[in-house]
Amino acid sequence: MHTIKDISQGVVNGDFLLLAKSISWIENREVGADEFLESLQPNLVPIIGVTGPPGAGKSTLISCLIEHWVKEGKRVAILSVDPSSPFHKGAILGDRIRMKDWYMNPNVFIRSLATRGHLGGLMNGMIELTTLLQSVGFDIILIETVGVGQSEVEIAGLADTTVVVLVPEAGDEVQMMKSGLMEIAQIFVVNKSDRPDAEAFTNHLLHMMRECMGDAHIIPVVKTIATQQAGIIELVAAIAAQQSNGLSTIRKKQLLISKLYQIIAAHQMRSLNGPMIEAELATAMQKKHFNIFKFANKFFNV
Amino acid sequence: MHTIKDISQGVVNGDFLLLAKSISWIENREVGADEFLESLQPNLVPIIGVTGPPGAGKSTLISCLIEHWVKEGKRVAILSVDPSSPFHKGAILGDRIRMKDWYMNPNVFIRSLATRGHLGGLMNGMIELTTLLQSVGFDIILIETVGVGQSEVEIAGLADTTVVVLVPEAGDEVQMMKSGLMEIAQIFVVNKSDRPDAEAFTNHLLHMMRECMGDAHIIPVVKTIATQQAGIIELVAAIAAQQSNGLSTIRKKQLLISKLYQIIAAHQMRSLNGPMIEAELATAMQKKHFNIFKFANKFFNV
Repeated sequence: MHTIKDISQGVVNGDFLLLAKSISWIENREVGADEFLESLQPNLVPIIGVTGPPGAGKSTLISCLIEHWVKEGKRVAILSVDPSSPFHKGAILGDRIRMKDWYMNPNVFIRSLATRGHLGGLMNGMIELTTLLQSVGFDIILIETVGVGQSEVEIAGLADTTVVVLVPEAGDEVQMMKSGLMEIAQIFVVNKSDRPDAEAFTNHLLHMMRECMGDAHIIPVVKTIATQQAGIIELVAAIAAQQSNGLSTIRKKQLLISKLYQIIAAHQMRSLNGPMIEAELATAMQKKHFNIFKFANKFFNV
Repeated sequence: MHTIKDISQGVVNGDFLLLAKSISWIENREVGADEFLESLQPNLVPIIGVTGPPGAGKSTLISCLIEHWVKEGKRVAILSVDPSSPFHKGAILGDRIRMKDWYMNPNVFIRSLATRGHLGGLMNGMIELTTLLQSVGFDIILIETVGVGQSEVEIAGLADTTVVVLVPEAGDEVQMMKSGLMEIAQIFVVNKSDRPDAEAFTNHLLHMMRECMGDAHIIPVVKTIATQQAGIIELVAAIAAQQSNGLSTIRKKQLLISKLYQIIAAHQMRSLNGPMIEAELATAMQKKHFNIFKFANKFFNV
């Protein structure tokens, strides 16, 4: 395994090979990965979540944000868990060609994550990944997800700021509000805001927020036209203003508690002899009155 | 807590009060619940999963199955996790009135489960519940779910036989096939099979199965008209024929392994002082270079 010093040196040089290898090595839970994770000294690198429906222009918007931050001399890591995104491996060729500049940029690290749909969910491995990225010299971590679901709610726990991108014609915005986007958003972006119905849409959004959350908790709404780079400075400012607010701390604590228990449980599991237990189970489950709870008791405090 | 003997005596007498109390008691994880679960001696009571889209006629079909089994002198437990089902508490009044006979029948126990959407998923508590039901004198356990998702796939692991109910006009059947119903179905029911397009639909289904799975693994397709009780005997026969086939054993083993680890991990968690750990975490996470993996290490083998 490579040292953090080597990996960080690579990141400084814009060579992400060692970093990519380390990520795979952690994902595969190779021997020593736990000790490596424990040795990390993560910095308070802000994690920005960007979510919204496909077609809202998230990728173009993220490109603008990358450009802004890179011009400021920052190193940016992008984690994409949106299969429809050009940042994701599954993107169509045209989008990927447009993205080529970012893939080649020495200050931009892009990683697609295909964990969606797997047992254990999206978050499985996400805290490992962000902890590593926070330890090797990045200044900003951006996580792109699609839609809304349990995964996005969990990402919102991980992120210091969650940006929800909508477009004026989003017919299902009411549905999305109901299904939890209102709850996770710290910033709303109304992208493609040069469309004729942008004003009405924004007013409707503000009205809904007042209905749902009351006047005390109005979420900032930033209008952008990502294709023209309009509104990006305002969005960057809104993100900076929302960093580390109380809400995200509470969510982060909840997330860390659940991760903590997961780490402890996983450690306990590894102290067990899996193949032996599974062989025993295969035999035991054939028996009359097999009881999984009684069977499990044998392995308590082994 | 009541004894298994008392609960079973209640079930024999058609009095499910003690059973219902015990279920709540286990669900709330009250003191002694683990020991109670460990003391159970479950019998090999078949678990039948019934799933399919809303409007496919699952409830009417299940009513027919209940009637068939009750006439055979069997005691039947129905677990409904389909919020649109009249077996579920959320059902509309008309359906519930039609269902009244089953709710009052001393040989039929019905329980609605509202776990969908909760963290930990549908399966959280399901093995506890079925293990208890298998220990107190039921002859058949039927689990009703809706649609297809991770939950249904897990239910398919728990069930000895999974019946997928479709209707001829189901326009999204191709989508459903793709999204995993084909994988979990051990029996397909084409309900409302008196509709004009039933034959074409069935042929299409068989064609898709051959495409997806090859000739070697054709899933039985049973045509029913549940409202006329047509095809029920054929369905009962198909269920009996599919019991404990190799596939369901493999799935059950996978499910039991994951449950086993969950039980062991939960036991480990309970040996930890939660409030103390969470208070420590709240302080530690404010510190520079906070590392959840290093923090967790403190609690290994406590």
